[in-house]
Order: sequence, then structure tokens, then C-alpha cells
Amino acid sequence: MHLDSFCDTAYTFAMRTSKLLIPTTREIPAEAEIPSHQLMIRAGFIRKVASGTYTYLPLGLRTLRKISQIVREEMDASGAQEIDMPFVQPMELWDQGTGRRADYGATLGWFTDRHGRENVLTPTAEEVVTSLVAAEINSYRQLPINLYQIKTKYRDEFRPRFGVLRSREFVMKDAYSFDATLEGLQKSYDAMHAAYCRIFERCGVPYVVVQAQAGEIGGEGSEEFMIPCDAGEDTIVHTADNTYAANIEKAETDAPQVEGEPLTGDPTGELEAVATPGCKSIEEVTAYFKKKLKTKLNAKNMLKTLVLRATWSDQGAGPDWVLAVVRGDHELNEHKVLPALRAAHPALDTVVMADEAEAAAAGFCIGYVSPGVPISCLTVIDPAAAVGGFWVAGGNQPDTHVKHFNWQRELVAHVSDTCTMVADIRNAAEGDTRNGEPLLFSRGIEVGHIFQLGTKYSEALDATFLDEHGQESHCIMGCYGIGINRIFAGAIEAAHDEDGCILPATIAPFTVEVIPLNSDKQEVREAADRIYNELTEAGVDVLLDDRDARPGVKFKDADLIGIPLRVVVGGRTLADGQVEPKRRTDAEATLVDVDQAVPQTLAIVKELLATSNY
Amino acid sequence: MHLDSFCDTAYTFAMRTSKLLIPTTREIPAEAEIPSHQLMIRAGFIRKVASGTYTYLPLGLRTLRKISQIVREEMDASGAQEIDMPFVQPMELWDQGTGRRADYGATLGWFTDRHGRENVLTPTAEEVVTSLVAAEINSYRQLPINLYQIKTKYRDEFRPRFGVLRSREFVMKDAYSFDATLEGLQKSYDAMHAAYCRIFERCGVPYVVVQAQAGEIGGEGSEEFMIPCDAGEDTIVHTADNTYAANIEKAETDAPQVEGEPLTGDPTGELEAVATPGCKSIEEVTAYFKKKLKTKLNAKNMLKTLVLRATWSDQGAGPDWVLAVVRGDHELNEHKVLPALRAAHPALDTVVMADEAEAAAAGFCIGYVSPGVPISCLTVIDPAAAVGGFWVAGGNQPDTHVKHFNWQRELVAHVSDTCTMVADIRNAAEGDTRNGEPLLFSRGIEVGHIFQLGTKYSEALDATFLDEHGQESHCIMGCYGIGINRIFAGAIEAAHDEDGCILPATIAPFTVEVIPLNSDKQEVREAADRIYNELTEAGVDVLLDDRDARPGVKFKDADLIGIPLRVVVGGRTLADGQVEPKRRTDAEATLVDVDQAVPQTLAIVKELLATSNY
Repeated sequence: MHLDSFCDTAYTFAMRTSKLLIPTTREIPAEAEIPSHQLMIRAGFIRKVASGTYTYLPLGLRTLRKISQIVREEMDASGAQEIDMPFVQPMELWDQGTGRRADYGATLGWFTDRHGRENVLTPTAEEVVTSLVAAEINSYRQLPINLYQIKTKYRDEFRPRFGVLRSREFVMKDAYSFDATLEGLQKSYDAMHAAYCRIFERCGVPYVVVQAQAGEIGGEGSEEFMIPCDAGEDTIVHTADNTYAANIEKAETDAPQVEGEPLTGDPTGELEAVATPGCKSIEEVTAYFKKKLKTKLNAKNMLKTLVLRATWSDQGAGPDWVLAVVRGDHELNEHKVLPALRAAHPALDTVVMADEAEAAAAGFCIGYVSPGVPISCLTVIDPAAAVGGFWVAGGNQPDTHVKHFNWQRELVAHVSDTCTMVADIRNAAEGDTRNGEPLLFSRGIEVGHIFQLGTKYSEALDATFLDEHGQESHCIMGCYGIGINRIFAGAIEAAHDEDGCILPATIAPFTVEVIPLNSDKQEVREAADRIYNELTEAGVDVLLDDRDARPGVKFKDADLIGIPLRVVVGGRTLADGQVEPKRRTDAEATLVDVDQAVPQTLAIVKELLATSNY
Repeated sequence: MHLDSFCDTAYTFAMRTSKLLIPTTREIPAEAEIPSHQLMIRAGFIRKVASGTYTYLPLGLRTLRKISQIVREEMDASGAQEIDMPFVQPMELWDQGTGRRADYGATLGWFTDRHGRENVLTPTAEEVVTSLVAAEINSYRQLPINLYQIKTKYRDEFRPRFGVLRSREFVMKDAYSFDATLEGLQKSYDAMHAAYCRIFERCGVPYVVVQAQAGEIGGEGSEEFMIPCDAGEDTIVHTADNTYAANIEKAETDAPQVEGEPLTGDPTGELEAVATPGCKSIEEVTAYFKKKLKTKLNAKNMLKTLVLRATWSDQGAGPDWVLAVVRGDHELNEHKVLPALRAAHPALDTVVMADEAEAAAAGFCIGYVSPGVPISCLTVIDPAAAVGGFWVAGGNQPDTHVKHFNWQRELVAHVSDTCTMVADIRNAAEGDTRNGEPLLFSRGIEVGHIFQLGTKYSEALDATFLDEHGQESHCIMGCYGIGINRIFAGAIEAAHDEDGCILPATIAPFTVEVIPLNSDKQEVREAADRIYNELTEAGVDVLLDDRDARPGVKFKDADLIGIPLRVVVGGRTLADGQVEPKRRTDAEATLVDVDQAVPQTLAIVKELLATSNY
């Protein structure tokens, strides 16, 4: 990328601070928990409208649009075609069409219009795009095709938080590829993978690609693009050399070494009920033991028993409930339960966390459930929990746990063998390995997600084509998302300091800020105006801080906003024929001759853009 | 605008037809009533998703984005600042905030989220932007400010139609100005007026500016920008020289000349009931007289009596109902009723068309209402209906009208004088004049609307500032809308022929299409590729029709899409060293030397862009 091509973006626009709404603030907003949320408010990029919805102010919108434009350019370069689908979509496509209404549940925003028709506020657009392709594509000659849009989406998040990272309304680039063959899908998927790498490189954000679960989108095989940072909501599991990296929901570990035959250990004592009033969680029980019973109880000596709901392809082919048991210090991985059980129960269709009220109605004493509860269930036990030893488990009645729980004694008495199995159903944890390499854990923000969908949607919505032999087949789909707002927040999480944002030059609202000090002096104003005008004419995105304000205020604002390069024009240095360029990341300003200010600035801009560029 | 600045838009992008989804069709879609709707489907610009919602395909989106970019550039040039407000807004702002929930009624799209909070799918954003300004603007020094966005909007239209002209989901540019003084508002308003003129000129659409009613937006003084065309939903009333032009809702006429004192004419005969079974409308009654009673009855000899609902600032200060009476061949202008009545009844708050069910419950015999119905009402009579003569009116009972209705006899007997008045309450009609000039009537599509709002919203949402004397005042607002999709459809309505669209060069999806015929010949392919590449490098938006299709198919598609200029490279003419450029509006192609193809094309492009440009 060279300077001439700056004007390829429509956002080259010089501006004066006095003419822009940039309400910066020194106070850390109380409601903002993480740096990007705090800084986006403090720098005047966003303002909250309601829980999970924000207005982007002029600077914030400039960055958002620069990110969108990079995404658009790389999508176009990959051969994808931009379209625009409605935000409000007919519910019937989601209901009778694909059944995703149920998958999304309460997270799906929807409303009934004046004619009584239900409409979805779209979180993704598989239904509409697949219907479009079903209507317009008939032949393999029209494939492959990849259609994308950059558009507002909505999720009725239970708890919106972290500013624009988990908001209800957001901007997503969503792309959908349609291929005639599996090899074609692989090519389309690889092309998107490559485009995503270029996009994140050009946006100047660090990223890792991790294996992922497909979630509500469905399909086989998917990868996430993550910006590694402490504030991330996702846990990345990886080896030291990063040859293996996966989202914790997906991460696979070497089979754990368990001593002896599972479920065979001898009891450590008689089963004994312990009153644990109001203690439902592992933390509450261990705290209660410590504080009230003056006994140390480790979480890893507890059994965590979770109730899941099963559905069967043949209704009634098996019980409605699944108990999943992991050690108290481990986390259940819900996604591992269905594959683990399906080996023995091929008619199992879905297994998801049970609704608490429903489970309670069925007789489960939520918070105190123990394996061996006399309700018809499948029971799957993680190997680390299936050993002998001292176990504290739920008591299957309110406010009660039991000590000396023993698998042999308590479980085998109650259930048949085919309904009980031992399998890896937990998240990876400290100490686990993958191919012998220790697994490390770090946090990340998901900014992209690519999926090999297969024919899930084309079958549901009948998107077929005639192949070269005249045979009718279903299109093979992939889908590909990028969170535009999340790249913005992620860039700030990845690079900021106590003074504010450190934005990559390709996405900063302005690349350069010209700061005249002593603007009462005519020669200062004139020099600053000249540099500002010449940089603008050279195609650089320049902000001129023309306010009548103290130098400290101007410097602090420039640092807070994170403008990559500032050029200070001061009365004293100008008298010596010099001005001071300074990168946001430089400790000190340098002095350059005023005549060299523009060429020197252009050289630094070129370098800054190259750094955050492919 | 010169060719170099093409690259100021991000949309310069050369493309091949074989790589784009352009599903053109020769069939006229059955559901499309007007040319723009038919052609947008036939040219592969849009596809319907549900009633009033559309997907924009690649070509349609290109035009939409070119229009958006022109709007953005002119808004920025006027000093306005682009922001982005949420599509989903808290209902409380619309309810307790401004009360607009009631004004919009069933047209407002809204839903309850998982936490039971009501949310609006925003049709306009006065509430959110005024709240933003209330929070961020404190001093007159920060004024004026004009904030705008280009964003999806929603209206739950009762009957979406005419394609994207009256859709439920649409893209609107909405701007909001805030000033400290009325003079400031006038300046902001004038700047928007000027920007709008430049926008429509650059978009290459004909337009007229007309005086308008403010409707649900409210405020004083507003003007509409209309594209004149037969398919327009609005009626424009204007003098021959266009020195006066207004929307019919707003149009004022010279006081009509009425013979004698109103309501004093003598009866033409005894009041006589006529059975008119099932005839509720003027048309039904006149048709019934002609067909069943073998009597000619002119609409202008009928009284049309409409029931309106009144609210009073002091509840109960007057009756709940208003009867508005106009001549059968005239149209009531609802907006004139309140001002006409307020002179005598200052406590009148609103007067709107009554809900039929409500009026029926109050005793009105809908379809057969007559002045003098024994229900407490205000009655306002248009001068043209207030004369003596032969009148047929409703009979105040089902399936009945009356002949020889006489004001003197039938009305005065029933109501007191202060409750009956004669005033201009109808739309302008053929024969009316304005300042002595005859008024003409034509149709138009509203593409822009600018409003002087005053303090309606700043008072409701407490958007104040401190003036230079430290006094707190309410910001004085204006608001300014442009329908992006409507400009697209309006451009097609304004210019098309039997072959398809004739799009202005500034907004056409591509400016030039290079069409190689006989693409089996290598020299044809090479010449076409060279021209395509060189034009692209010169910054022109070029489409290459690289399909293996018959010349007729390629020509028909180019005409249908409305590409302003095509360059045909044919085997035979190329053998003579020539290619054929042809404007969409040229009857015949011209021949130019193949070496001159690029410079000649560039010259025509320059001219085409200048024509649809300011």
C-alpha cells in the first residue's frame, strides 16, 4: 500500500477539533469494567443509549468505518459479492424453515407486526441468503458464490456488558459461501481464512486462530479468530509453540491418566448426611465446611452433578434426563456430552443444559443433585471424578450434602450399566496435555468465526442446483462472521497505556494530529495551517487541534484518543525554525526543520501504515 | 469534479459479469405496479424477502452506496458530523420522553425484550439525538451543531407497496441541527436546503421543492424535495411558473368566490329519503342513482360529511366530535380543520380522523352521516359546500340518503351557531388559483424533507444550554431527512424507457460496460480486456460482460440495467480497427478507432458525469 492509494478510502477528510463533537473526559466511567469500554467512553468514541446499545460519535464512527472498509476491500478481493439483506426478517424462515428459533431461544429478538406476523431482528442471515440462493441459483455453472453484507445485527443478550464487546446491537460482516462440492467448500473456506488473516493484519491487531465449537450456527468444523488480551471473555487453550490452539469449548486433551478401573474404589467411610443450608455451589459448600464445620474441604474432593435435558430422534427411545458428573474443581464441557453418549445411544438427538424450573418439576433437587438420584437418567462421569476416594456429593434433598460418597456402593445399586458411562466431558484444565505438550491457558476476544456448514441450511430451505450430470444436489455452505465493533474494542484492549488508546494507523480516527500551541501567535497558526493543509492534500487523514486550550489539555486528548502521530507547532521551537513530530509510542518528541515537517511526517505515516499492514 | 477524484469514492471497482449475481429477467413481475418496482426486479437490483422488505443484490447495492456517498460528502461539506445511533431504542424515550409513541400509533414497530423492557425499531431519531445533545452540550459556544447518520429505519406500514418506495425497512439519512437562536436555525436550515439541492443535482434526478406539512415530526415550517413523476404518491400543487409549489396537504388557495351569504340558500324541495342499499361512498351513490334510479347525480351535488375526533386541553371543554363537510367532488384536508376551528375554540388540542368503530359506537352511522346528526359536535363546512342548491346528503341511518338537503332548514334547527362555521377545509382542486394564478396538479415522490422543529424535542427532553449571559435556554432544532432507497427508485421513475432503466452516471452501478461480441476470437477478447483494464486504471467504474452469450442478450441486459455508456468490441468492426461506444440515450452507436477507444470513452464519461452533476 502506498500513499497514493489513501484516497481509495472515502474517509480521507481533514478536520478541525473545534468543529467536531469529541467529548473527552478524565473520569473513569463507573459502569465500565474493562479498559476498552472505559477508554471508548473517555475518548468520546461512544455513548451509551440503553443496556447494550451505543451511539458512535464522530471519532468512533470514523474508526468503525475504516475497519468496515478494510473488511469490504478484502472480501471483494477474495471474490465475494456484497449485498444487503433486511434486518427485519420473517419468523417463518426461522421457525418452520430451519428451526433456529428454538436454538436461539430468548436470545432471539422478535416482534409481532400490525398484521400479526412475527418478525426476527436478525442475529445472522443464513435463512434469508439461503432462500435467495434457492431462488436464483440453478446450475453448478453459477457456483461457487460467496455473498456478504456489513450490517446491524441484534441479540437479546441476557447480560450485555464490556461496552461494545457484548452488546445487543452490533455491526457484523456476515458472508455465506455456496459450493457444488466438498472440495469447493474447502477452497471457499480457505479463501475466507486467508482474507481474515489479511483483514486482521491490516487492522493492526494481534490475532490467533483457534479451533472452535459451531454453537447455534451448526455444521462441522469451525475456527475462531481471537485477539489475545486479559479482558477477553473466551479462554484459549494452546501449547507453548501455538501449534495447537483451541477455544476451551473445543479443546481436546490427551486421555487423562486414571489409576485403576473406574467406579471401583472402596468406600472411605459410611455415607453420612451433612446439613449445608443454602449452599448450592461448590464455593458455598467448601466455604461452609471451612467456616461452620471447621473442616478443610477441597473442591477437588467434591462431585459436581449437572442436569441436562435429552431429546431422542425416536421419541421415548431413552430417558429425558442426563446427569453429567465432574470433579468440583473442573468445568463441564456441555459440547462433549452428546458425542460421549451417542456411541452407546445412537438415537440421542440433542443434550443441552436443563431449564432449572423444568428439572425441579421432574424431581431434581437443584443445587443438591447427586448421582444415583432415583429418576430415570443417563449418567456420564468424567474419568477424574470416577475414581475412588473421599467424595462430598449432593444429598438429593434441600440443604443437604453427603460425605463418603462411593460409586460402587451408591451408584451401582441404583442404575443399570448401559445407562452409566465414563468419558471425558470436562474442559481442559491446568496440568492437561495435548500430544504430550503441556496446555497453557490465556484469554481472548473473538473477532472472527468461520464455519464449514455443509448442507444443514440448504436442505432445510431446499437450495439445490443441477450438477454437470443433471443431478439435483444441495449446495454445500460455509459461513463467515466478523465483529466490526469488536475489532475496535479489541484493538484498544491489545494496545493502550495509562494515557489512553494506542490505535493502529490504519484504523485510528485520524492518522496525524497537528497541534499548534500558543495559537494566539499568527506565525504558529499559519505554520500549523500550512502543515495541516499540505498533509491533507497529500491524502493523509489529519486532525487540527485549533482549540484555544492549554498545551496539556491538547496533549492529553491526543494521547487519550490514541492518534498515532502528532506534530506539535510551538512558539518557541518555531522561532528556531523547528516543529516536533512524535509517535504515540515515542517517549520523547524529535525536532525537525519546519520545511521538512511535511515530508518527514509523510515518511513516518508511511512507516506507521506499513507496520499495521500486510 | 474531475476524473482524478473518482477515486474519492470507495466504489471504484472493475468487475466481470460472470462473477456477479445479476439475475435479470424479461418477465414483468406480477406484484409490481409501477415502472421502478418492475425494473428494479427485472434488472436484478432487488429481491423481495417479505412484504415491504427487500434484499439488495450486488448492482442494486452499488447504486445505493453511491447515493449514500454523495449524501455523505455533501453533508460533511455543509459542516454536519456523521454519527451512528442505535436502531433499537428504549421506548421510554418515545413514551414518557416525547409522547411520539401515540403520534405514530400502529406504524411504530416495537417489541418487548427478555427483561420485559419495550424497545422501538426507530423510524427517526429525534429522541436519541436530543438526549445525546442534552448530555454533551452545555454552552452556546458548542452551538450550532448538526449531527447526522445514514442508517436503516423501520415503519410498520399498513400496506407496503411500490417496491422500495413504501417499504417497511429502508435507509434514511437523518440529520438534526441544534442552534442557540432562531436566526441560527434559519442558517442551519438554509445550509441543509442548499446541500439537498446539490445532492439531488449530483444524483442526477429532477426535483422540485414544495411547502409541506410536518406530520408526526411536528414543528413549524417544512419543505419537501420531490422527484416529479406519474407514479408518485404525493400530489404537488403549483403555478405554471413554479413560483408557488406545495404538497397538496399544505397547498393554500385564494379564498373561493361563493355567491351570497353561506348557509342561507332556499330549499330546492321537500327533504326526501332515498334508499341507497350498501352505497357508502360518493362513487357508489352516484353510480346507484345512474343505474338503479336512472337519474344523473353529480358528485358536486353531494355533501361529503366526515367524522373527526377532537381532544381539548381542558378535558370536556367542548364536544368529542367534529363533522367536516365538503362537496362530493372535493377532498377534505384534515390538516386545515384544527386551525379553522381553533379561532373560535382555542382550547382545542387535536383533531384527527375518527376511528370508525369508535365513531359507530358513539352513534354515527358511518357511510351515511349527514350534518345535523343529533350528536354533540362541532361542524365545519367548506364554503363550496355551504351554498344553497340541490344537495344529496347522508340519511343518518343505514342504506339511506336524502335529497333536497338544505342548510337553513336541516342544520340550523339542530345546532347552536358557535358550533357551526364555514371555512376552507379542502384540498386545492382544479379551477383553484393562488394569487390569481391557476393552480396545476402533478405527482411526485418525496425524497427529502426538511423541518424547522423549534423547541418541541429540546423541551420534552430538556436539552438546554447556557447562553452568553449565563441564561439557560432550550436548543432550537431542525431535522432533515433523505430517503436513500427512494432516490434510487425515483431516478428510475424519472428516466426509463421500454428497454429498461436510464440511470444517471453518478449513481449507475457501473458507468461503462465493455461488451465483447464473438468472445471466441482471441483478438476480440484481448481488445476488450485492454479497454476494460485501461478504463479501470483511469478510475472509471467498468463492467466487462465476459459471458459466453449472444450479442442480443448482452445488449438487452446493458439497457435493462441502464448502464450510461457501453463500448462494444465486435469481430467485424475490430477487423476494421474500430469499436463502438454508445450512450444509453443514443439511438445509434458511433464508430471510433480502437486506439482512440479509451480517450474517447473517458471524454464521454466526463461529459456524462458533468451532466448529472453540479
